[in-house]
Amino acid sequence: MDTHATEPTEAQAPEAVPAPDDTPWLNAREQRLWRAHLEVSQLLMYQLGRELQPHGLANNDYEILVVLSESPKRRMRMTDLATATLQSKSRLSHQITRMETAGLVLRQECPGDRRGLYAHLTDQGWETMQKVAPDHVRSVRAHFIDLFDSDQLDAMYEALAPIAEHLRGLRGRG
Amino acid sequence: MDTHATEPTEAQAPEAVPAPDDTPWLNAREQRLWRAHLEVSQLLMYQLGRELQPHGLANNDYEILVVLSESPKRRMRMTDLATATLQSKSRLSHQITRMETAGLVLRQECPGDRRGLYAHLTDQGWETMQKVAPDHVRSVRAHFIDLFDSDQLDAMYEALAPIAEHLRGLRGRG
Repeated sequence: MDTHATEPTEAQAPEAVPAPDDTPWLNAREQRLWRAHLEVSQLLMYQLGRELQPHGLANNDYEILVVLSESPKRRMRMTDLATATLQSKSRLSHQITRMETAGLVLRQECPGDRRGLYAHLTDQGWETMQKVAPDHVRSVRAHFIDLFDSDQLDAMYEALAPIAEHLRGLRGRG
Repeated sequence: MDTHATEPTEAQAPEAVPAPDDTPWLNAREQRLWRAHLEVSQLLMYQLGRELQPHGLANNDYEILVVLSESPKRRMRMTDLATATLQSKSRLSHQITRMETAGLVLRQECPGDRRGLYAHLTDQGWETMQKVAPDHVRSVRAHFIDLFDSDQLDAMYEALAPIAEHLRGLRGRG
């Protein structure tokens, strides 16, 4: 998202209503970091998605293969999978339908469990992930990880880890 | 996307096909940064989206308001807007239809220009952005910018800027 957080300006609108004075607009140093973060986030997902395409997968598909492969019995409740992937239940449902058609996952009711449907990774889904993962890690290196030096690698993590924790806490609050 | 780039493992699949030996899997330090980046990217957009909801906007809507407000004459060709927002033309078209219904933008043909439709920001769209921007910058501060110290702010930018440039170059190659 190429959004901004400086005061809105527009050459053609001298009559624009001035924003309230107490708005804590970003200064130039903050603004350039915010823009760089947005750009890297968006363009990186775009590029990784392009490099998954020859495998017939989108970013969301790959994410689901990964989450299911790391779950006990290669399965997860649909509601938990929606939470894990930050998707609405209806959007996830459409996606799982597409992945079911492709033979990668199966939706099954769990006998004796009233809490509804599970998504299961199929053997084909597991094999697909095994086949795609080496290419995917090369993409992650080429477009992100290998572009940091060793000090940056740790400094970035130390800066981002508390933010991730903060955001996980907010999500938990529902 | 909670994706991974270590060697796929699964307790229940001792028979799994081993990955080729030459795959440059991420080590633990690389992996934790990759996961933190993904988590921050995704959860931050999720949180910013939640905080735009009371204004009746989604992240994509706000992005389009910003891009159009910064364009000459508050307008942009639909094809250029799709490129700027990394969306497919069909997905952008659906979104602009929704935003047109909400009175935020207008689609207009440009007389004498065969290169098709423009999306224009309406006065209501401009006023909406003016009204929303102060809240949005507070969200950006609370969940991202204000969580860095001054040194981190610059170090992060210096690490991310070359990656943004690398990724912009790749996108240009189409």
